[in-house]
Amino acid sequence: MLNFDFYNPTRIVFGEGQIAKLRELVPQGARVLMLFGGGSIRANGVYDEVKAALAQHTVFEFGGIEPNPTYETLMEAIALVKAERIDFLLAVGGGSVIDGSKFVAAGALVDGDPWSILEQHAKNVKAALPFGAVLTLPATGSEMNAGAVITRKATLEKFAFGSRHVYPQFSVLDPTKTYTLPARQVGNGIVDAFVHVMEQYLTYPAGAKVQDRFAEGLLSTLVEDGPKALAEPHNYEVRANLMWTATLALNGLIGAGVPHDWATHMVGHELTALYGLDHAQTLAVVLPAMLRVRREDKRAKLLQYAERVWNIVDGGEDERISQAIDRTEAFFRSVGVGTRLPDYQLGAEVIGPVVKALEAHRMVKLGERRDVTPEVSRKVLELCL
Amino acid sequence: MLNFDFYNPTRIVFGEGQIAKLRELVPQGARVLMLFGGGSIRANGVYDEVKAALAQHTVFEFGGIEPNPTYETLMEAIALVKAERIDFLLAVGGGSVIDGSKFVAAGALVDGDPWSILEQHAKNVKAALPFGAVLTLPATGSEMNAGAVITRKATLEKFAFGSRHVYPQFSVLDPTKTYTLPARQVGNGIVDAFVHVMEQYLTYPAGAKVQDRFAEGLLSTLVEDGPKALAEPHNYEVRANLMWTATLALNGLIGAGVPHDWATHMVGHELTALYGLDHAQTLAVVLPAMLRVRREDKRAKLLQYAERVWNIVDGGEDERISQAIDRTEAFFRSVGVGTRLPDYQLGAEVIGPVVKALEAHRMVKLGERRDVTPEVSRKVLELCL
Repeated sequence: MLNFDFYNPTRIVFGEGQIAKLRELVPQGARVLMLFGGGSIRANGVYDEVKAALAQHTVFEFGGIEPNPTYETLMEAIALVKAERIDFLLAVGGGSVIDGSKFVAAGALVDGDPWSILEQHAKNVKAALPFGAVLTLPATGSEMNAGAVITRKATLEKFAFGSRHVYPQFSVLDPTKTYTLPARQVGNGIVDAFVHVMEQYLTYPAGAKVQDRFAEGLLSTLVEDGPKALAEPHNYEVRANLMWTATLALNGLIGAGVPHDWATHMVGHELTALYGLDHAQTLAVVLPAMLRVRREDKRAKLLQYAERVWNIVDGGEDERISQAIDRTEAFFRSVGVGTRLPDYQLGAEVIGPVVKALEAHRMVKLGERRDVTPEVSRKVLELCL
Repeated sequence: MLNFDFYNPTRIVFGEGQIAKLRELVPQGARVLMLFGGGSIRANGVYDEVKAALAQHTVFEFGGIEPNPTYETLMEAIALVKAERIDFLLAVGGGSVIDGSKFVAAGALVDGDPWSILEQHAKNVKAALPFGAVLTLPATGSEMNAGAVITRKATLEKFAFGSRHVYPQFSVLDPTKTYTLPARQVGNGIVDAFVHVMEQYLTYPAGAKVQDRFAEGLLSTLVEDGPKALAEPHNYEVRANLMWTATLALNGLIGAGVPHDWATHMVGHELTALYGLDHAQTLAVVLPAMLRVRREDKRAKLLQYAERVWNIVDGGEDERISQAIDRTEAFFRSVGVGTRLPDYQLGAEVIGPVVKALEAHRMVKLGERRDVTPEVSRKVLELCL
């Protein structure tokens, strides 16, 4: 096990009917800015429940935060925060709204242009506005971590930042609020959580038995309950398990004391920035190819994964590894997410620009051994066709 | 899955050499009281490392906190805190020292006699001194939770309290500091962690797949690495896995959203209070008998446990359940902890007094269904002979 420093102070209030607890969770007397996305929270009743719970609070609103939240939009929110002397943020939505709110929370207090937070890896973040979240889409884990990914529309750049100042104070997770999600978002969320786990698990053995077993437990739950969420949208237990799994997939716990990969994410970010694919779509495309290209480096963990997650125990080692990767790809397809570039009307023409973007962003030594060079990324992309 | 509220702000600084980080972890300018036990930390080098890390701090010392820490001793520490205007506590030791420090932290600020904290289930705890911990004995999980068990010598009472004000700010976990633990304490720690998991897992199915799998992951790791810790005391990976497992066994995570039992603990506490058995010894005695008496109520989970933790898949259901319980008892014995009252020179004469003590302490509706009456506890004790 590697040495580690684990800290996660976010309070999780989980279950049906818990949105009403906002009344006590949001500080009395706060000037609250409620941030949300395109309006789905009006259709599924979340907006009304939040407003009812905060009837005694002073609440301003900022809607329209887009998927892959942009600097340009969030700067408008920061302007509103300053104009109205907001002192508490409430993110209501999925990972994009929560990520965006983290940027607003830090950006409202930083000196100079908030884009510097991305450029300086948040080293200039010394404080942030306190905030909470109401999660409507299990996927990114943003509700219980201190990271965010922000896109700059003008330059097609997509960067991540993390700072211990931007843990949500609390997040409310009500599985019933996910019943009406479109199938595409449900499938994306399952893939996103799955790949989050894989980035922290499928590297090389580090003797961390608990972390491995927790990761395998999350993966197995996604494999079992992911397709069920699509088949039985109102199954509470299924939705509850998926929601808690997606949170635990990226709250720091399974990543403590083990090597991390994240190469799939870095290649995927470029695909989103350049071609507008959903984040999870890029992961579903890149991960299987990434595992195929790097199967020798990841041999020991791929065999463990094959046995413990997919119950593949027969056949030679190479065959078991191939089967495990094939089943991973088939699983993504089974929840409705395409795994090849042509599924998104893209082809070999994207390889050059993506590799060039990786180089431009200095993403030239990726992976748990820092050996995923642009040349390796090119090979990965060639297997995505 | 049941609704839940999960919150755990303790920072874990894990790994070899991490005690040196106390220099930054303990606030500058604090008046620190270092609390410890019987002096083992002088033998294993922890005392010297802590003092070296805090060379620039103002540090007072309070040694002599006993296993099953007593109100009587801790009141002396509270007097010292007040006399020296201490504003930060550092617990250095195992669960007893950390539990005791929690009582000191809350007791120093409570109105009236601190024993009222136990009597009022901590409802009168409105604040506590901040504190951190250096863990030397993986077992109780106290290093990452907000609970403590305190004994009153004068009345032979042993009570628990919990308050969100007594989470450690941080805990330093260095597995190498456990190399020199006596075998008895290593075995006790393994049993303690194992039974903590069982109290939150072995109840009835609640559809909480992730919690179940995390619990099973912790149990499997204890089964694999517990005996190794005794056979290879200097195996870092084994010690690291055990240490992190014991912390995760009782930090709130696996218990969020599931029913809890804790009847074994309640009966065990009376055995410790009346006859002085080590806490883990009482658990090793009571748990197997508790499972045997309540096997019908726990049938579904016992079958799951048999299959997933012990790989018992052949034979009829009743046979599999019996095997799983037998193997649990054999596992406790394999790490050197006796599982029957005669192993501790006790016999049927204890049954009456223990049942009477349970009644006196209103422990008359125990277990996940509140149906473990004194009569059931009596049957359990009869199977401990």
